[in-house]
Amino acid sequence: MRFDYRPIGVIDTPWDGPENMPIQPAGAAGVEGTVRLFEEYREGLQDIEGFSHIILLYHFHRSRSFELRVIPYLDTRPHGVFATRAPRRPNPIGLSVVRLLRVEGGTLYIRDVDMLDGTPLLDIKPFVPEFDVPRDVRAGWLEELQHAARGRRSDDRFAG
Amino acid sequence: MRFDYRPIGVIDTPWDGPENMPIQPAGAAGVEGTVRLFEEYREGLQDIEGFSHIILLYHFHRSRSFELRVIPYLDTRPHGVFATRAPRRPNPIGLSVVRLLRVEGGTLYIRDVDMLDGTPLLDIKPFVPEFDVPRDVRAGWLEELQHAARGRRSDDRFAG
Repeated sequence: MRFDYRPIGVIDTPWDGPENMPIQPAGAAGVEGTVRLFEEYREGLQDIEGFSHIILLYHFHRSRSFELRVIPYLDTRPHGVFATRAPRRPNPIGLSVVRLLRVEGGTLYIRDVDMLDGTPLLDIKPFVPEFDVPRDVRAGWLEELQHAARGRRSDDRFAG
Repeated sequence: MRFDYRPIGVIDTPWDGPENMPIQPAGAAGVEGTVRLFEEYREGLQDIEGFSHIILLYHFHRSRSFELRVIPYLDTRPHGVFATRAPRRPNPIGLSVVRLLRVEGGTLYIRDVDMLDGTPLLDIKPFVPEFDVPRDVRAGWLEELQHAARGRRSDDRFAG
């Protein structure tokens, strides 16, 4: 079984290489970018401007392979890839929650962008607290480290 | 450009058809299911049991087509598909945040499952509040309606 997905748009950001970029939206606070939705999908944006935040699903287009155990940016020990947000995954799909500033035609102006310039967009979903924010969360090995993402930058470990 | 993704496992749930099922994890509170990760990916689960919640990305395998404007379960008016969580999307990728109860070998026992039985799994990511919970959220047309998802069931409008 295979799934044949196609890009529905492109994400433009200031980050042009996998080195020295924010490692999560929390580390990209204030950084702006745009989502350019392809013409044929624009009708699907109706009413999206009412949402302050959207979930972007995108293809990690620089990921050429994957590893099942990785040493992520925030730690010095290896973890299973499914316990990390590392880009080199069996299906290299990225997920970021970003702030939606405004919509002009097929262009969405967004803030807190942590993906590479030219990233192919797969889907946009509205961020809805009732659906997306569970209660009593425990964040495993990231419980203490998650806040260190703020201001941290990547290195080249996941390049290629 | 096309992306060729493959299932990494299967999600087993009590929901065997697109009718009369919960429309979001919030409406599936307490309902348990399992994720069976295929053997070759199991090493990637290391340390995942420390997380109370995981994000599942999966393929809406019953979605055969898409519409850019849809009338979602929670409303009587049409909205752009990207302003909804409806399954019939240009790239039919689903996203659910579920509670992780325990891990046994390659099987993850999960709670609050709102996807169909036999759903092909694309990715597992750890849910990390610092990355996934923004501040000052406004949920557009769903702002007042989102809480009505609790206990609501689907009908057949997105079947096929």
